[in-house]
Amino acid sequence: MEYKPLPIPGGIAAPQGFKAVGVQAGIKIKDKYDLAVIGSDNLAEAAGVYTRNRVKAHPLLLTRAHLGNGKAQAVVVNSGNANACVGEKGDRAALEMAKTTAAGLNIAVEDVIVASTGVIGVELPLEPVRKGIGEATALLRGHGDAADPYWQSEQAHRAALAIMTTDTEVKELAYELKCSRGLIRVGAMAKGSGMIHPNMGTMLGFITTDACVGSAALQALLRETADESFNMVTVDGDTSTNDMVTVLANGASGVIPEGEDWALFSRLFREVCIELAKAIACDGEGATKFLEVKVEGASTVGQARKIAKSICGSSLVKTAMYGEDANWGRILAAAGYAGVDFDPDRIDVCLGPLPVAEKGKGIPFSEEEAKRILKNRHIPIGVHLHEGKEEATAWGCDLTHGYVEINGSYRT
Amino acid sequence: MEYKPLPIPGGIAAPQGFKAVGVQAGIKIKDKYDLAVIGSDNLAEAAGVYTRNRVKAHPLLLTRAHLGNGKAQAVVVNSGNANACVGEKGDRAALEMAKTTAAGLNIAVEDVIVASTGVIGVELPLEPVRKGIGEATALLRGHGDAADPYWQSEQAHRAALAIMTTDTEVKELAYELKCSRGLIRVGAMAKGSGMIHPNMGTMLGFITTDACVGSAALQALLRETADESFNMVTVDGDTSTNDMVTVLANGASGVIPEGEDWALFSRLFREVCIELAKAIACDGEGATKFLEVKVEGASTVGQARKIAKSICGSSLVKTAMYGEDANWGRILAAAGYAGVDFDPDRIDVCLGPLPVAEKGKGIPFSEEEAKRILKNRHIPIGVHLHEGKEEATAWGCDLTHGYVEINGSYRT
Repeated sequence: MEYKPLPIPGGIAAPQGFKAVGVQAGIKIKDKYDLAVIGSDNLAEAAGVYTRNRVKAHPLLLTRAHLGNGKAQAVVVNSGNANACVGEKGDRAALEMAKTTAAGLNIAVEDVIVASTGVIGVELPLEPVRKGIGEATALLRGHGDAADPYWQSEQAHRAALAIMTTDTEVKELAYELKCSRGLIRVGAMAKGSGMIHPNMGTMLGFITTDACVGSAALQALLRETADESFNMVTVDGDTSTNDMVTVLANGASGVIPEGEDWALFSRLFREVCIELAKAIACDGEGATKFLEVKVEGASTVGQARKIAKSICGSSLVKTAMYGEDANWGRILAAAGYAGVDFDPDRIDVCLGPLPVAEKGKGIPFSEEEAKRILKNRHIPIGVHLHEGKEEATAWGCDLTHGYVEINGSYRT
Repeated sequence: MEYKPLPIPGGIAAPQGFKAVGVQAGIKIKDKYDLAVIGSDNLAEAAGVYTRNRVKAHPLLLTRAHLGNGKAQAVVVNSGNANACVGEKGDRAALEMAKTTAAGLNIAVEDVIVASTGVIGVELPLEPVRKGIGEATALLRGHGDAADPYWQSEQAHRAALAIMTTDTEVKELAYELKCSRGLIRVGAMAKGSGMIHPNMGTMLGFITTDACVGSAALQALLRETADESFNMVTVDGDTSTNDMVTVLANGASGVIPEGEDWALFSRLFREVCIELAKAIACDGEGATKFLEVKVEGASTVGQARKIAKSICGSSLVKTAMYGEDANWGRILAAAGYAGVDFDPDRIDVCLGPLPVAEKGKGIPFSEEEAKRILKNRHIPIGVHLHEGKEEATAWGCDLTHGYVEINGSYRT
């Protein structure tokens, strides 16, 4: 079977049997979407990956407990408040979100995934949250009647809007894939712009599919895929307290992706995760450039990943790219402190197609051509270690006045 | 014997039997000091610590070889060019610097320490370097006649000027200490402003003393001290290819610091290193704030150091401090991803004297008082883990428009 995924509308709610809505609960300033609920018609298989930050937000702890049995039926997310570092009140607020959602959808409390994003250390205002969830679940219940696919797409789009904080672009996508046993769909949405430095899932990401996949297989696939997608993004080196990526598989397509179909499904799943990851890097706080650092010729994947992420995360590389300055010495220096061994006398560096260093030292290159490459928004950086056949790619963005501006005054 | 160090003039050349000069060799733009030579009247005991970056500058490799026997008599340093990542020509250039200095001072080539700092990947122009070393060594040779201590201080000051790159403040100091066996002196100079994230000595630092200390004891003292001084500074998370700190002890005071005197001498040595480290953090590229993060109540020193450095290096903490925003949630988040275990429900956070979080959650505090504290240039951040009795302090600076400005256009 050929792998030919087809982009489709509908975002997170595109797979059969899923619905999503976004509402203006009033947690953020007026007229902003700030609360989303995703529902599945039936109890779905579920998996999640979470931040490795020792300080974990209250909803994250609740979600991890709820996903202990590998099942979930709904997701509730708010933006504008991280519900982190506020003590027992935070645990109670997260539970309240799950309870209100469960009551509104007539499902079990432990089948609700809860996530929050926003400022740390401020108590979540429960009144607007309860009201918003009431409104959202009422919309979801009425959803079955609204056969209009345009209306459903619009609602899913509002859900994607409702999880944004400093994001400037909505991050949602959906694909349909023909397998030998039938059609399956994957939908996804994510947020992420600052406090992005992955150590597991490093952002909020939600993925739905109507494929029939058990939670154990789903969890294994998500964990493996997170390492080469979300965990390869860095915006500012700051790992958040709230990051999580969850996936729900409700089986509504009736398609069990086995054998050849598993290869197709897992490839689509991987590409969806990478697309979300790249979208987050691209929309990094204050970013004017999207950096894609590919390390080839490594002896292990781990070595390639560490070097790629080190280069992508270097403040000096990031500011040089902002200044459109072909300062490749900083790329070598950042590779050198990645914490893995390599031979500095064999490393090659390219900016886009232009070789700038070979065997660990600079070579003559056209500054004009370099300028032309660095004028683009998308800057590919290539590094070859000449040690083996493994490779890895990391994604990030430049470090700009915009980043300093946004984060010098985020809370106030 | 009471520990009462006395600040004295003379910088790096203040200890007996040391001289230093700085000249304008023409490696940097016109009218800038860019080459320094330090000489000892006799062969001194010597020790060094070096960057742990896998990519190491050419002079660093030469210096490490020259210090293999624990002896040195002179130091030659240039700024304006890192002499890194330029292949064999770089090795030859470093050796040429040592040879020219040795010839000028009539000492052995292998007794010369060589260091460079500046842009990576550009060949060092040998003509101005040779000329500058010739001029500097001639000045040093004539130095004996110039008994004028003011002139000697001025020359040492020029040496400290000559190693600066984006530094805005000269970093030099000297102390005299009364021991039971007599007077000893310690002098020092350093440079460092960007590409500062310590993994061993992370900067250029030079220390002289006229105490009689063997190279093994000197090396042990330097390594131990570097871990709590230079290695606790972070400006931008970028570990340089050129960092090194060396110390020369020529014994000219005739004082062998043993027993009680060793305690006095090593304490002074430690405080000199910490003072240099703080000066570097204070002068971080674009910095408007000096951050001092103290972690107390840790179960091990290692745990305390990692958490202190993680907070000090967080882009989000740094931008919040720039914006004078008491966003303590970012401090907790940065502690959480330090990569060491602790109980997030016991951690307290203070800004200066003002408690802002207790037991892992926010407490009510006066925003006005917080603003007052954050208006200062020196911002102490206190963290208590309530686990044990160990502590550590890290130093850094805020992340500002100035940093982005400086590094968006460093090379061009």
